[in-house]
Amino acid sequence: MRDPRYDILFEPVQIGPVRTRNRFYQVPHCNGMGHVHPSAMASMRGIKAQGGWGVVCTEECEISPQSEFSPCIEARLWDERDIPALARMCEAVHQHGSLAGVELAFNGYSAPNRYSREIPWAPSNTPVRGYDPVQARAMSRADIKHLREMHRAAALRAREAGFDIVYVYAGHDLGLPFHFLTPRNNRRTDEYGGVLENRIRLLRELIEDTRDAVGDRCAVAVRLAVDEQVSGGLSREGEGAEIFSILADLPDLWDINVADWSNDSITSRFAAEGYQEAFLTGLKALTTKPVVGVGRFTSPDTMASLVRRGVLDLIGAARPSIADPFLPKKIEEGRMDEIRECIGCNVCVSGDHTSTPLRCTQNPTMGEEWRRGWHPESVRRVHSPGRALVIGAGPAGLECARVLGARGMEVALVEGLRQVGGRVALESRLPGLSNWSRVIDYRLDALSRLASVEIYRESRLEAQDVLDFAAAHVFIATGSRWRRDGLGRALRQALPGLETLPILTPDDVMAGAVPPSPVLLFDDDHYYMGSVLAERLVVQGVDVIFVTPAADVATWTHNTLEQHRIQRRLLELNVTIITSHTLATATPDDAIASCVYTGRPRVIPAACLLLVTSREPEQALYGALDQSPGSLWAAGIKTVALVGDCLAPGTIAAAVYSGHRQAREFDAAADSLVMRREIACLEVK
Amino acid sequence: MRDPRYDILFEPVQIGPVRTRNRFYQVPHCNGMGHVHPSAMASMRGIKAQGGWGVVCTEECEISPQSEFSPCIEARLWDERDIPALARMCEAVHQHGSLAGVELAFNGYSAPNRYSREIPWAPSNTPVRGYDPVQARAMSRADIKHLREMHRAAALRAREAGFDIVYVYAGHDLGLPFHFLTPRNNRRTDEYGGVLENRIRLLRELIEDTRDAVGDRCAVAVRLAVDEQVSGGLSREGEGAEIFSILADLPDLWDINVADWSNDSITSRFAAEGYQEAFLTGLKALTTKPVVGVGRFTSPDTMASLVRRGVLDLIGAARPSIADPFLPKKIEEGRMDEIRECIGCNVCVSGDHTSTPLRCTQNPTMGEEWRRGWHPESVRRVHSPGRALVIGAGPAGLECARVLGARGMEVALVEGLRQVGGRVALESRLPGLSNWSRVIDYRLDALSRLASVEIYRESRLEAQDVLDFAAAHVFIATGSRWRRDGLGRALRQALPGLETLPILTPDDVMAGAVPPSPVLLFDDDHYYMGSVLAERLVVQGVDVIFVTPAADVATWTHNTLEQHRIQRRLLELNVTIITSHTLATATPDDAIASCVYTGRPRVIPAACLLLVTSREPEQALYGALDQSPGSLWAAGIKTVALVGDCLAPGTIAAAVYSGHRQAREFDAAADSLVMRREIACLEVK
Repeated sequence: MRDPRYDILFEPVQIGPVRTRNRFYQVPHCNGMGHVHPSAMASMRGIKAQGGWGVVCTEECEISPQSEFSPCIEARLWDERDIPALARMCEAVHQHGSLAGVELAFNGYSAPNRYSREIPWAPSNTPVRGYDPVQARAMSRADIKHLREMHRAAALRAREAGFDIVYVYAGHDLGLPFHFLTPRNNRRTDEYGGVLENRIRLLRELIEDTRDAVGDRCAVAVRLAVDEQVSGGLSREGEGAEIFSILADLPDLWDINVADWSNDSITSRFAAEGYQEAFLTGLKALTTKPVVGVGRFTSPDTMASLVRRGVLDLIGAARPSIADPFLPKKIEEGRMDEIRECIGCNVCVSGDHTSTPLRCTQNPTMGEEWRRGWHPESVRRVHSPGRALVIGAGPAGLECARVLGARGMEVALVEGLRQVGGRVALESRLPGLSNWSRVIDYRLDALSRLASVEIYRESRLEAQDVLDFAAAHVFIATGSRWRRDGLGRALRQALPGLETLPILTPDDVMAGAVPPSPVLLFDDDHYYMGSVLAERLVVQGVDVIFVTPAADVATWTHNTLEQHRIQRRLLELNVTIITSHTLATATPDDAIASCVYTGRPRVIPAACLLLVTSREPEQALYGALDQSPGSLWAAGIKTVALVGDCLAPGTIAAAVYSGHRQAREFDAAADSLVMRREIACLEVK
Repeated sequence: MRDPRYDILFEPVQIGPVRTRNRFYQVPHCNGMGHVHPSAMASMRGIKAQGGWGVVCTEECEISPQSEFSPCIEARLWDERDIPALARMCEAVHQHGSLAGVELAFNGYSAPNRYSREIPWAPSNTPVRGYDPVQARAMSRADIKHLREMHRAAALRAREAGFDIVYVYAGHDLGLPFHFLTPRNNRRTDEYGGVLENRIRLLRELIEDTRDAVGDRCAVAVRLAVDEQVSGGLSREGEGAEIFSILADLPDLWDINVADWSNDSITSRFAAEGYQEAFLTGLKALTTKPVVGVGRFTSPDTMASLVRRGVLDLIGAARPSIADPFLPKKIEEGRMDEIRECIGCNVCVSGDHTSTPLRCTQNPTMGEEWRRGWHPESVRRVHSPGRALVIGAGPAGLECARVLGARGMEVALVEGLRQVGGRVALESRLPGLSNWSRVIDYRLDALSRLASVEIYRESRLEAQDVLDFAAAHVFIATGSRWRRDGLGRALRQALPGLETLPILTPDDVMAGAVPPSPVLLFDDDHYYMGSVLAERLVVQGVDVIFVTPAADVATWTHNTLEQHRIQRRLLELNVTIITSHTLATATPDDAIASCVYTGRPRVIPAACLLLVTSREPEQALYGALDQSPGSLWAAGIKTVALVGDCLAPGTIAAAVYSGHRQAREFDAAADSLVMRREIACLEVK
């Protein structure tokens, strides 16, 4: 069944003392569950092994309270008590014949130690990363010795937990060994500073220590950022490659990427699949050890080509393995069409930033494997098959119909327009968001394989149509529309003077409206929409004045690692940016903004207002049905549910999740739906 | 021993079915421990009861995953499994004869449900507070019924856990019942919206439900914000008082404050003790039930006066009870001088914002009661008394000497200057920071009662002096100085062109320098220092251009609830603010800043640069001693330790903590110092 072109991806690879069954390698990635939700983390990793990933790694794993990452929730191996949680993950991974890797991490000045209150360590005195009022202190020789002992002890605990691969972490400008590598952070004058050989010393020692401690049974991997993409930082063409070639054969495996994290995990808005290839190419020739690298790979052709061309030995993936834990298995079984390709939106990353379990736009089961018992590839058959009507083929409706169909319902998916996809169809045509259409592609393809699902286009239903259709279960997924009155976070009442200026919403622009110039774009949404619309308008020759009550543009996108790139792009497009201002009133020729701090007015000439504030769910149909429960009963309709944006407007991820959840749970007993959780164990007095 | 003027504070007060032994009331406050660190939370609360607080409450306590506050760590009563953790707190509080209160909280649109992924509820459709891409949905009547059932069930669990007082929470624009009260958030047209009586309905129902459920044994308290201090919001003179008077006798206790949190918990920089009195006055006359209110009260005279004048029945406190858990006991025993007065810096609040255990500038044991076994009022006597030398009488040195003295050491505290207090003596003279001198006052007073501690002023010690002194243990607390070269977060190398312009640091300004105008103040510190110096300079007639690489001024002060007030104040003082820019070079007449996004240069005319970037620890003396271990041995010196800023510059809280910790732990065996923690309990497979 497998396409022979991809056979190469299923060759085993020797990594030091262990051997992986294929070239699919889930590199370490955070998930917001870690040591706080250990069974949830283990279950998620186990499912990836089941899905065919030959190696499945943890997230960063703290080795000591001397460098802890609170409130980010990562793995933890501080002492013996932390072993059982990670042993559970190893068991889950081994159960499916895969190898388990652990990324031991000591983050030095990147971790302010908010929980433990220990003074962070660094090569030289420096404030910590971020804004905490904490300075790290230059490590003494005794500290370095202590660090090596802690790292060694953690490696031993990792082996005891059952890991097959143990990392020394020097990636992302996060791991302390990386801080020693770069003159930006290392101003030491002893044998750990100055010339490159000195700056490499700590990394070399940690590799040697780890091999000495656990090398008999575990492979020693190094995760190294070979390029920082910042002036004064390491570069691939400079010391990046030099470090690599000096240490070439010391570890058993190289896991190569770029720093910082925002450069490693670029969204599809800012980079295409394979964007790290230029940094990877040529490194493999410098070592006899296998090399793994990433680049948001979802195409088996790209993967096979990377191996054939000698760029990589192992295909690394974090986000693609989140979007589709079964990606390898689908290639193996010749089911390439069924791959749920990562759209590169980085909603997954926001879990780490908000210290809550990760989620995924494409894969609504991500993070829910254990607590809700959701498997990405299987659903429970319904007890009593019957007819379901899903109204609206946006992300919620598509997913809802897909899961209902998979569960054995006879489903009619009815869409008012010719085009399916709802908001995703529109948004994926905005600048940089084309990959988002994969949300539709995956689902249309899945629906085409479900004989019991029928799609009806250009069919706008009224309440009577729904009654006439007489499905047992009705799911309304009619989406939402952007408000035209400015109501949102900042304005709790409609904007005064609305009637005096032309008003547009994102819906208008997505429908093709080209507003008169200059446009005052008021962004009180703070995610991507304001900035992509600004981009689109500038390209169309419209001048844009971007006003936001927040201190920076698209401020929530700090959580998706995009904020810096977004604001830079708008500035480079000569968008006028006015931060920390809300709107006070509109008048025929301008709008009056108001400083959020002082209330001072600021007149902004504008030919029209583009209001990106909040959305109103489209509940007219639901309202009409809800008014006559008797008619529903008479028509044999047992349940009517709102799903997705028409329940509550949110992200595309939330819409897909909503559709998925409704389809899984509409026939479940309430008491079967209690979310599992693990709570803190009270110490016995 | 007690001053009879304060007898009134020790009168018991009946609160519904329960009776508190005195008028000291620890109102609910967050602490960053909550359900994740339950024994730590219980221990902290228990110590407050031991210290004489007649009532000790929890933080916000979630009643259901339908409104959960992740990643903020609060208390939790989702189901039966959460009872034991809070029962532990109740036991700890009851053990000392105090009452335990629980603040049941359902935060509606203020909680984006990042963990549970449930759609938040609100009176009307609205984006959530903050920037999460989530909208809350308008509650249906069924939702309201469901909410009431959940609240009732949680009240029953609270009673089972042992609580004496159960709250209905309508404070801070956080609790959902509050959202119903105000037209800003309530646009409903049914019986829960419109006229005030309708908007009150939900709050009334929850009070009645709670009384019905647990009123036999528990008092029902309402925490209500009577003023929002925002246009269109509730005001004390308007509906705030009206709501209060309509519900006047319905609950057993009123806990009154103002919204939002930043207005309730103002720092001393922006408001003096008792700043809420205007909002409290007059309310008591409208009810027969006891009223508790807050205002950062630390003065027993103020407290007694509030009761005598009929403003309050119970003296509420959050921050003063953190700074001194034994405040009531000290008044009771006539030891007013020993009160460790809250300095109003809100470092405690940052624990909630960073999801880590709270800390306190004045009370270094806060948050450490359980995990390190630290009691705020007692320390272990040393096994082998002997001489200790503490060099430097800043916050770290003062605290270190105090604890060493209390432990029975013979201590010499040696200060180079005439004035003790170090940085605190200097910083507390900056605009708004005068209360910070309490850090010195408390410690000087405590030292004056320790016969074994001697303070030597104007004594600058060299290494030979230390050797000659021949103490067994030497603690170096020589502080730090601000760097003159710009090195910090943004600049990893010295600023080019430094020599061309006059350079000042905060040390120069605190020493009295008045720089030429205009000053380019480069703030890469991001806490308070840049902004207070700007304020000081403007008052002295100097023009200030404030440049920061962050998106807003003093960005870390979001964590102390001060950011908005700080930036407003600078704008009102006509400080020019340039955000998102770093410094590129200095030239004789100006500096060239650089956009952090695009690198675009921006020329800024400046007569001098004031660099507020990072600090360098003052380790010269330590370095000299460290070079000759033989001499130390010969002099009988067993240990030499760096404490406070000269180990690693940080907050004053960190300096006090460092001094305290060293003094507690210098003679402890390493294995006795392992920090206790409670980890997630793995579910049995």
